[in-house]
Amino acid sequence: MESFNIIEKLHSISEAQSIIMKSNIRYSIKMEEVKVEESIGKVAAEDVRSPMDIPPVDRSVLDGYAARWIDLSVASEESPVRLGIAGSIPIDSGDAPELKPGEAYEVATGSPIPRGADVVVPVEYTRRLGDVIEVYRPFPGGYGVSVRGEDLREGEVILNKGDIISEWHIGVLASVGISRVTVWRPIRAALYATGLELIEPGEPWRPGKVYSSTTRAVYSYFISRNVKPEYLGILPDDVDVIESALRDALSKYDIVVTTGGTSVGRKDATIRALHGLADDIVHGLALTPGRPGAFAIVDGKLVIALSGMPVAAISELIAIWDPVYRRLLGREKPWEPVVEARMRSRFTSHPGMVNVVRSQTCYSGGFIYTTPLRVTGSGILSTLIRANSLFIVPEELTGIEEGDLVEVRLTGYPGRC
Amino acid sequence: MESFNIIEKLHSISEAQSIIMKSNIRYSIKMEEVKVEESIGKVAAEDVRSPMDIPPVDRSVLDGYAARWIDLSVASEESPVRLGIAGSIPIDSGDAPELKPGEAYEVATGSPIPRGADVVVPVEYTRRLGDVIEVYRPFPGGYGVSVRGEDLREGEVILNKGDIISEWHIGVLASVGISRVTVWRPIRAALYATGLELIEPGEPWRPGKVYSSTTRAVYSYFISRNVKPEYLGILPDDVDVIESALRDALSKYDIVVTTGGTSVGRKDATIRALHGLADDIVHGLALTPGRPGAFAIVDGKLVIALSGMPVAAISELIAIWDPVYRRLLGREKPWEPVVEARMRSRFTSHPGMVNVVRSQTCYSGGFIYTTPLRVTGSGILSTLIRANSLFIVPEELTGIEEGDLVEVRLTGYPGRC
Repeated sequence: MESFNIIEKLHSISEAQSIIMKSNIRYSIKMEEVKVEESIGKVAAEDVRSPMDIPPVDRSVLDGYAARWIDLSVASEESPVRLGIAGSIPIDSGDAPELKPGEAYEVATGSPIPRGADVVVPVEYTRRLGDVIEVYRPFPGGYGVSVRGEDLREGEVILNKGDIISEWHIGVLASVGISRVTVWRPIRAALYATGLELIEPGEPWRPGKVYSSTTRAVYSYFISRNVKPEYLGILPDDVDVIESALRDALSKYDIVVTTGGTSVGRKDATIRALHGLADDIVHGLALTPGRPGAFAIVDGKLVIALSGMPVAAISELIAIWDPVYRRLLGREKPWEPVVEARMRSRFTSHPGMVNVVRSQTCYSGGFIYTTPLRVTGSGILSTLIRANSLFIVPEELTGIEEGDLVEVRLTGYPGRC
Repeated sequence: MESFNIIEKLHSISEAQSIIMKSNIRYSIKMEEVKVEESIGKVAAEDVRSPMDIPPVDRSVLDGYAARWIDLSVASEESPVRLGIAGSIPIDSGDAPELKPGEAYEVATGSPIPRGADVVVPVEYTRRLGDVIEVYRPFPGGYGVSVRGEDLREGEVILNKGDIISEWHIGVLASVGISRVTVWRPIRAALYATGLELIEPGEPWRPGKVYSSTTRAVYSYFISRNVKPEYLGILPDDVDVIESALRDALSKYDIVVTTGGTSVGRKDATIRALHGLADDIVHGLALTPGRPGAFAIVDGKLVIALSGMPVAAISELIAIWDPVYRRLLGREKPWEPVVEARMRSRFTSHPGMVNVVRSQTCYSGGFIYTTPLRVTGSGILSTLIRANSLFIVPEELTGIEEGDLVEVRLTGYPGRC
């Protein structure tokens, strides 16, 4: 029988990621079409190009009179130019008439301008006398006119594959007539807690018990990162029961995620069950926090056995799962905004380990600073709410010096330093 | 009859905001309890304090042996200290035994430590000989022990009223046993488009027609800012029809929002209908973009008549609606992360007007820079997707100089300059 008492070798992040890539996860990732107004926060599955020019025709950006600049070139207060009003063009006019020399058409903001017109004179620089207007100054060619395609050109990319769709994208998509957009459907993840010490939040606490919080943190982490989790409860510390629960979930979900039971004690039934089932497994990660995690393939499907501690579990997802999943979605950037910040104190990392570091980022005088939070273990909860950012220290570094620059992801709201 | 041909006076932002405050909007804002794992992205309606210490008892952060530091103070490689193993304390033990001098208890990571113990010796610094261990070095008091309340103390605030709940909050809330959290229920907004030139996205475009995009931008803006919108379609340009639609929606929704029809042309039926119905109205705003917007009270309820152009409509919501609504929710900070950035070019603002400016923010060398985007009208769509930030210029300024600092809200993803 294999020994589970020691994680003998720590595996690199890329070894763990190769397990994800060897699984059939890529076949679980499907596109779906949603209404453009329902697409906020979803991830674009394709580039979207504008099917039309904006504006679609030359149009007025003022209320006034469309005219020829050459007719107005001699206009002045003392000697205004008179133009005959040939008509009025409403903003919903489908047809722009021809403007003859010496004439003007009344236009509103958004009206198409007549053929031959090249300026729109603002109403406040005119005086109307029946069917004639007087204009009191000249205007340069193009004044008051928005030219077809000036804002957006047909074929221009307005949404990139991998973009998280914002209200700003939606305004533009709808403006060019797009009512449905193709996004990545969230993959479906079964989520189990394991650990004989666990009780569910809401139950009264009693000595020896620990709330099953990691599943909640993982659940909400997934929801906001294009994974649809379903929480299936706490499994008992029994290898057979865990094996059968994993098999059952694997038949129904795209991936299966467990929390806890991945250390090396006799009671770590999860990892024993997983070793029994797995076709391929990486257990023990060169990652701080997150050393005890495991990534495995069972019947072609991915099983992620996360640490029992919330901070370590999230670290495993951030460092290992997330970059691979984003790549499969065509999204290179992290989910959070990234800025480059100056370290306010040294961070010493475990040599040969990737470190996921929570930090406090603040701004002052156009500079951004970040302070790594000191932790004494992976269960340090308070850093989760005191931190507003995180950064990743690659394995080849032994630390980052005070004053060095580091790219931080904003997980919360920076304040003034 | 009142003239609608000119917005005679522009109203300040605070005048428009006083309309919101005079409406009965505050009575529409209600709390609701949701499952902690479903609370992500919602706004906390109350401060939440930890009901317990974390850790709840003194516990081990290592696999090893709990002992007294005084017993080990003379330990060395040459002359190890021997301790008798009194027993083993599992991590789910509800009861910590008393440690006698010269003894040690076997503990795992998370186990409560026995009364009287003040260090945990890592297993790798011990050698086990039957019921005895040898320890090869001394350890300072407290080594390997996480003290009750060290991470979080009972009564400590773990979620502030107005916080947008993140996965990080959820991990902490669940860890202290909280299964439900009180959040602000989104108010319900009816959303109508008005404008005889409008067609719905998805319909084929034809000359003279404009897609009803502003409603989509507003819809998704609201969804992501704690308002539940319902889009009720395009209203015809008929004062009676608009009046009756507004009355109907006012009886069913908390607020009513329209887009378009707020300018001064003869066809701006929305604003005429609103003048007819309103007990109080502010029409014409000292805001760029967003001059034509109106805020009104009808039967005590708030009606917001936004500009027809998406950029102007969103600007009206950002500058006027949003600060008041956030204050009512107890949230002072904007929805987006804020950083202070250095202006890369001058921005000249309309004197006496509040300006909502879209900008491109980038980082380099620990600095943050922002470049205001040049616009020629409120309909400039492409700035919506080219911008990744915005800032607000108050009415008392006539501009912001190149090199000056400005607080920008990150509406997208900054890149390297």
